[in-house]
Amino acid sequence: MQQTQGSYTVLSGGVGGAKLVAGMAAILPAEKLDVIANTGDDFEHLGLTVCPDIDTLLYTLSGQANPETGWGMANESWQFMDALEKLGGETWFRLGDRDLATHIYRHELLTAGLSLEDATARLRQAMGIRVPLHPMSNAAVRTAVETENGSLAFQDYFVRLQAQPVATAVRHDGSASATPSAGALAALTRPDLRAVVIAPSNPWLSIAPIMSVAGLESSILKSAVPVVAVSPVVAGKAIKGPTAKLMVELGLNPGVTAIAEHYSGVIDGLIIDEQDAGHQASIEKLGIRVGVTNTIMKNLHHKKHLASFVMEFSSKLKGRSR
Amino acid sequence: MQQTQGSYTVLSGGVGGAKLVAGMAAILPAEKLDVIANTGDDFEHLGLTVCPDIDTLLYTLSGQANPETGWGMANESWQFMDALEKLGGETWFRLGDRDLATHIYRHELLTAGLSLEDATARLRQAMGIRVPLHPMSNAAVRTAVETENGSLAFQDYFVRLQAQPVATAVRHDGSASATPSAGALAALTRPDLRAVVIAPSNPWLSIAPIMSVAGLESSILKSAVPVVAVSPVVAGKAIKGPTAKLMVELGLNPGVTAIAEHYSGVIDGLIIDEQDAGHQASIEKLGIRVGVTNTIMKNLHHKKHLASFVMEFSSKLKGRSR
Repeated sequence: MQQTQGSYTVLSGGVGGAKLVAGMAAILPAEKLDVIANTGDDFEHLGLTVCPDIDTLLYTLSGQANPETGWGMANESWQFMDALEKLGGETWFRLGDRDLATHIYRHELLTAGLSLEDATARLRQAMGIRVPLHPMSNAAVRTAVETENGSLAFQDYFVRLQAQPVATAVRHDGSASATPSAGALAALTRPDLRAVVIAPSNPWLSIAPIMSVAGLESSILKSAVPVVAVSPVVAGKAIKGPTAKLMVELGLNPGVTAIAEHYSGVIDGLIIDEQDAGHQASIEKLGIRVGVTNTIMKNLHHKKHLASFVMEFSSKLKGRSR
Repeated sequence: MQQTQGSYTVLSGGVGGAKLVAGMAAILPAEKLDVIANTGDDFEHLGLTVCPDIDTLLYTLSGQANPETGWGMANESWQFMDALEKLGGETWFRLGDRDLATHIYRHELLTAGLSLEDATARLRQAMGIRVPLHPMSNAAVRTAVETENGSLAFQDYFVRLQAQPVATAVRHDGSASATPSAGALAALTRPDLRAVVIAPSNPWLSIAPIMSVAGLESSILKSAVPVVAVSPVVAGKAIKGPTAKLMVELGLNPGVTAIAEHYSGVIDGLIIDEQDAGHQASIEKLGIRVGVTNTIMKNLHHKKHLASFVMEFSSKLKGRSR
């Protein structure tokens, strides 16, 4: 099969990205797949470094994710949280008893001097995941959302305030001095790289932090391989999360065309859902090739279907069109 | 009642000390009791600072202690530990899901810059404990046990190796530069102080670390009030823990007379169990007054009885005899 002759590097945020990665991992040999994870929504909480997108990827790829919440682990218990609440600790960010082992183990590794990259490798190996997961950087890049109520750290905006404040801009604090992780950089410069895939994650909150790291966007722009994105919005709505709401607040029309415009100059192709097929022509006017398929991933079959589609679509884009 | 006119300061290790403190707390108004807790068995574990004796005091005084194990909380669950084990993390020191909230909350406070003393105050207030608990020092003093197998950090010796290695000496690393916590020092110099009480804790592993902090032993020696210890051994055996085994290894006869000899020059009186009444004369030869009563605390009645006895016995020791 042609797809297995080259490798794919996926830029991913949390839930939506993890689903596509799971589909690709089900099709490709692990050595033909790399994932660069957003760490812009990592944060220091309770004295620990919490990495929500990496953890969603870890739990999804190891079959431990909670399919109902989209975050955390399945079969979770909440004794820790209950006891912390009794102590008067902060409980707005829910940490289950089993999930907490991930945070503590990572904290122990980081405290011992390991890089986030090496700590992530230890965690994924411990969970039996063969696909390499690379944090975008070992340095702290922290997304902040400028809102009408002032500047908010990402998790304050996203979890504590449930993305209710009206956003006016998104910042990526620390990105100016951050360097890419060695794994992320290597994943974008592999000799056998066939395509860079931008997962159906929030372009401003999940993908922009990755692109903000000096050296990652330029590697992508310099690469000879096609860059293909999967739209995170379908019929003007996000599958999950505040993408559509945020687009409106940023003055954009929340649809696939605005996604294409946002990625214009970076991507060669955009995969949109069948429900958005009517927008194909307007996207192609931007010089972006369009693939149309079902992008809603409700089960493993859907994930594998979309993963196959992404790979086949990429293989048709022979060179960079930018 | 005479006892309530003055205040008492108790030096305490874990389980045995906490029981006596609970008895005194049940009799005395909180403002007439101070506890100086051993922090020599604190340790850095999983990137957290764990304070076993403070926690045993917190849980005992708040009615949350596990009466069967002598450590940890009652009604505990172990999901975190199970998940950590799956990750390959260290599980020899058992941290329950609810107990973990204490460690994490303390870690958060320490990371935010609070002293151990202030973090302890926050924890005890959160648990509704009115009795002040003072860590002996805000600085790290770490007990190490020299054994025939080499030097072992305290919890390695005590928990991981279950006190099996043969001890040859006990060190208190960091004590030379450690200063007393403000609360501990104030508790030993209160104008209304009636007596200093050394709880029935291991003299070498629980009380010696407290005494090793420059300024604490000297405050006790300088104090005009009586110093009274309760023997942690009864009929040549420790109620709990390795006291008797350790005494043999240190070349001592594991009985109340050796306890008296160890504390000679520091204490004015020693309270021994009825089973050891035959040793009274030999202890009195050291210039130490002896009180004899039931010192085994199986229930609150026993704890209150011993607490009353300690206070009455102290009141008979009018001045320092050292």
